[in-house]
Amino acid sequence: MQENILLRDLEDDGILRLTLNDARRRNALSEAMLTELGAAFAEAGANPAVRVVILAANGPAFCAGHDLKEMTAGRAAPDRGRAYFTKVMAMCSGVMQAIVNCPKPVIAEVTGIATAAGCQLVASCDLAVAADTAQFSTPGVHIGLFCSTPMVALSRNVAGKHAMEMLLTGDMTSATRAAEIGLVNRVATEDALRQATMEMARKIASKSSMTLATGKRAFYAQREMPLAQAYDYASNVMVENMLARDAEEGIGAFIEKRAPQWQDQ
Amino acid sequence: MQENILLRDLEDDGILRLTLNDARRRNALSEAMLTELGAAFAEAGANPAVRVVILAANGPAFCAGHDLKEMTAGRAAPDRGRAYFTKVMAMCSGVMQAIVNCPKPVIAEVTGIATAAGCQLVASCDLAVAADTAQFSTPGVHIGLFCSTPMVALSRNVAGKHAMEMLLTGDMTSATRAAEIGLVNRVATEDALRQATMEMARKIASKSSMTLATGKRAFYAQREMPLAQAYDYASNVMVENMLARDAEEGIGAFIEKRAPQWQDQ
Amino acid sequence: MQENILLRDLEDDGILRLTLNDARRRNALSEAMLTELGAAFAEAGANPAVRVVILAANGPAFCAGHDLKEMTAGRAAPDRGRAYFTKVMAMCSGVMQAIVNCPKPVIAEVTGIATAAGCQLVASCDLAVAADTAQFSTPGVHIGLFCSTPMVALSRNVAGKHAMEMLLTGDMTSATRAAEIGLVNRVATEDALRQATMEMARKIASKSSMTLATGKRAFYAQREMPLAQAYDYASNVMVENMLARDAEEGIGAFIEKRAPQWQDQ
Repeated sequence: MQENILLRDLEDDGILRLTLNDARRRNALSEAMLTELGAAFAEAGANPAVRVVILAANGPAFCAGHDLKEMTAGRAAPDRGRAYFTKVMAMCSGVMQAIVNCPKPVIAEVTGIATAAGCQLVASCDLAVAADTAQFSTPGVHIGLFCSTPMVALSRNVAGKHAMEMLLTGDMTSATRAAEIGLVNRVATEDALRQATMEMARKIASKSSMTLATGKRAFYAQREMPLAQAYDYASNVMVENMLARDAEEGIGAFIEKRAPQWQDQ
Repeated sequence: MQENILLRDLEDDGILRLTLNDARRRNALSEAMLTELGAAFAEAGANPAVRVVILAANGPAFCAGHDLKEMTAGRAAPDRGRAYFTKVMAMCSGVMQAIVNCPKPVIAEVTGIATAAGCQLVASCDLAVAADTAQFSTPGVHIGLFCSTPMVALSRNVAGKHAMEMLLTGDMTSATRAAEIGLVNRVATEDALRQATMEMARKIASKSSMTLATGKRAFYAQREMPLAQAYDYASNVMVENMLARDAEEGIGAFIEKRAPQWQDQ
Repeated sequence: MQENILLRDLEDDGILRLTLNDARRRNALSEAMLTELGAAFAEAGANPAVRVVILAANGPAFCAGHDLKEMTAGRAAPDRGRAYFTKVMAMCSGVMQAIVNCPKPVIAEVTGIATAAGCQLVASCDLAVAADTAQFSTPGVHIGLFCSTPMVALSRNVAGKHAMEMLLTGDMTSATRAAEIGLVNRVATEDALRQATMEMARKIASKSSMTLATGKRAFYAQREMPLAQAYDYASNVMVENMLARDAEEGIGAFIEKRAPQWQDQ
């Protein structure tokens, strides 16, 4: 019987831990893995018991990006792979956007090496905590295949010259440097990593899921708008949020100095 | 007689110091405060004697954001507050944009705690100097009300993951960390804060107001444009600026190694 | 015989070194210099022997920006210089965009003072390495002429408040600070600078030029798009890149654990 390549553990406090579990292939984003991830984020979004998602990995590589052997096999087709590559890229970009569009906050817990689309996974998460031994790179230039889709996520995380240095040189970036440039939020020792991520996750899981979903969606929507439009949009989001039950409860609890009780708790 | 909730002190050198002065309500952005701020920035923009604005605060809180008691009272209306919340959000977003659109540079001088729309105030200023004891947060998630309008300003100051950490956890950010991520320009001890802000303000106040207004407007306009359009726009701004009297005077003075005399000085 | 104001040295490994060589005028972006730079980047883009460009400078100033004496002479025209300023701004903005649009990666190697459009040159390069004695500023406010075109590049490199501080105060930024805020990638001692730049350049020059050109173009294109559009665009870039000869060779070499041989090497 085959082992699952993506483990799903839902803890009592609403924290869903997804663990990339294909260490033999360095957790490559094979078709099978992309399918698993797409399904997992769709389910996480729909399941009210899930309040926060942690994306972690087993093995020495967090994720090595696309499965190059699978991609190369695709070249055997009469169209030299065009249809296949198109399909895989759509799947992969779909998974990355599924993370962004997932109404639950997603935290990457990075151990080992996160390269190419693996680095993109980290960049696509809302938050990231890295082991101090973790490393990041967009090494496509080494093999003639620029990390063009990873850079969509990377360049929305870090400054232009920092992104370009990673993309043009393919060099590894240490966890410490990744924290400096904004690719991850914080760094912990390997021993303390899980606790650091869980602390962040529990904090967020204690909030109203409605509120988190409202805010996460609004965050990514407004940052693509000009300022005046962003304010019109966000003001409207605030009005609807104020009228929602959890804001009434939360503000009431704050004024009355008691703990709030969220609707879905 | 009621004390003013917003103090206005115009110094001889053209530095207008606005001080939030409603410590009892932690300088909350009540309707009254928003009205005062809106009027003050409109007047500062129109008054040629004002060259730079400093936004400071009295009391332990720089600004605690919206006045939650006032907001909650609004729920008594037959529409459960919709019209009222819509009005307050429009007022608040209007004040934030009034800072951005004010032709005079605005410097936040932050003491104490700047939370929610108070943090947004800091983010909306062109520059910010913080006491090393200042703290920043977008804590709306604690009360079921995501800081969706504050994030419009916050996400235009700091990297995505840094903004998301503040928004999703509601945690306090220290002044030092705020400087690291770009939310404030610099940090000073409480004793040195006012001098640090004044030094920055005096430097800017010594420039041509026409030039500052031209540049500030162009800054926020061009950064919402694609690169080629931004260059077309900014090139035109430069041409008009070159043809203005203060550039002719300033460049002439530079070549002749003398101090320039601006038109409005 | 007049000395060249822009030196061009193409090394064997495909590294083109452009050196601003008008120290007497502090490497100002005179009409002559802009013409030279425009031609040099056009040629670098078209010449398959050029794989990477380094932009360096002789003399104490990397580049002092526009040639103010030349600009001032333009005021003598019946239109007070409008046509002339328009022409020079178009030339200058053209050169800056020629760097961005050049299919070869461009690295600034900064020694001395990079001010106004000189700072813009650095910001416009894909990467930058600075001597620890280098300094940066956008000092137009001192002379009544806001650095409105430099800020187009600057504000696409660094956070808003960092850009505004440079623009509104005109103050010098040290190399160390420039690295902290993202204006340059790294800092080296004067003695080690050239080697640091060359190391970066050689690394990039060893990659497939096709791949670098594909990625650089895609980088600047996708970052002006909303996320979903950026993913559609970049996915398509990846498919075309996969079908190109150098990706097939590079991926094959990687799987076979041998060094790739690029088409144009």
